[in-house]
Amino acid sequence: MKTARLAYQGHVHYAKITDKGLELENGKSVQEDEVVWLPPVEPHTCFALGLNYKDHASELSFDTPEEPLIFLKGPNTFTGHLGFTKRPADVTNMHYECELAVIIGKKAENVSREDAWEYVAGYTIANDYAFRDYLENYYRPNLRVKNRDDSTPLGPWFVSADDIDDPMNLTLRTYINGEIVQEGSTKDMIFDIPTLIEYLSGFMTLQPNDVILTGTPKGTVDTKVGDEVVTEIEGLGKLKNTIIA
Amino acid sequence: MKTARLAYQGHVHYAKITDKGLELENGKSVQEDEVVWLPPVEPHTCFALGLNYKDHASELSFDTPEEPLIFLKGPNTFTGHLGFTKRPADVTNMHYECELAVIIGKKAENVSREDAWEYVAGYTIANDYAFRDYLENYYRPNLRVKNRDDSTPLGPWFVSADDIDDPMNLTLRTYINGEIVQEGSTKDMIFDIPTLIEYLSGFMTLQPNDVILTGTPKGTVDTKVGDEVVTEIEGLGKLKNTIIA
Repeated sequence: MKTARLAYQGHVHYAKITDKGLELENGKSVQEDEVVWLPPVEPHTCFALGLNYKDHASELSFDTPEEPLIFLKGPNTFTGHLGFTKRPADVTNMHYECELAVIIGKKAENVSREDAWEYVAGYTIANDYAFRDYLENYYRPNLRVKNRDDSTPLGPWFVSADDIDDPMNLTLRTYINGEIVQEGSTKDMIFDIPTLIEYLSGFMTLQPNDVILTGTPKGTVDTKVGDEVVTEIEGLGKLKNTIIA
Repeated sequence: MKTARLAYQGHVHYAKITDKGLELENGKSVQEDEVVWLPPVEPHTCFALGLNYKDHASELSFDTPEEPLIFLKGPNTFTGHLGFTKRPADVTNMHYECELAVIIGKKAENVSREDAWEYVAGYTIANDYAFRDYLENYYRPNLRVKNRDDSTPLGPWFVSADDIDDPMNLTLRTYINGEIVQEGSTKDMIFDIPTLIEYLSGFMTLQPNDVILTGTPKGTVDTKVGDEVVTEIEGLGKLKNTIIA
């Protein structure tokens, strides 16, 4: 099941994605040009992984991490499908990052790898932009690198876990202005989804609507004002974002 | 004005602190033993400062930072006055940290130091416990150090900005089981409140109920199960927390 979160005629709605289009809770069909797409989930806590694909760690000249590198995202960072993200004037490198976003479905405390899939409600696509300036700070990643307003498009919709046969074998792609610029597979994650749930729930409690952004494969490059950036994950759809000044 | 957020008879209430005690919105007086104290604010985004007092940076053998070291706190970390915080079995150093918490009152974007005070709604006390193990991680501070459940008591109440004459000259103290163990003054912050608001609002938008934990002075030491930890700030009251196994 695919569920979008939309603004339509003065309200926020959840809508099913059907063959005929968008269908609201009350059965009403709406057209795409009548709605604004919102992030399909409002994250309770949002975790993001750094350097969770070996080829991406290499391209940035980092060693492969020995344990998960996880940081938090603020609520200012989220925007929906067809949203706009500002390229700040003081930034010299603004990298898209196509990532599988895992949405937690129930309270998780000390969950083992073996049981971890039971705690996953579903998935969406994230584009977790990195502003690769200001890297020299003792606390990393610096908030200026990973916590700018609207720097994390999420969407286009929520896909329930039972719709995805093997989340650890999905192709990820990014296109800039229609041209493919990044391609990888979730099978190349260093720390897979069960490992991340075991790790996090081992020292804190995960809650419903917690979201884990699982990292990006290699192929991140700079973007320009006006670029249309589409991040795509097999089975999840395409998330489109436009860079503005 | 001092305002507490309380659970009482099945609901969450805001209560005025008066000479006669706690007074709910409807004018009803309630006794302390009838209520549960909640954090006086549910932070939208919560920022926390590392090493923002020179004497604390020294005691931990760090250089004085050249720019603010700021990280985010997850919603799992907050608890109210008279709450309980677990000392995890795998931790060898659990340090209290008495901190002035600044509560933002309105949307702030590119605010100058000169205008920054206009954006402060008020203050409360934070005890931002640090679990000083697992320090070796490329992303810092590691979530195991600063993002455990209930590791950030906030309270006991919200004090409006106009009640505090000089927020940059307040005494902070921590007591363990009645004995004073930490004493400092907000005048010794490396980056003061206007500087922090200018810095953060320069690259992202601050929102009402964003909270900035401004760091702790020197004097942080280990705690034990059963310890009663009271953090006190001049003009703001005393926030009590108990360490449990």
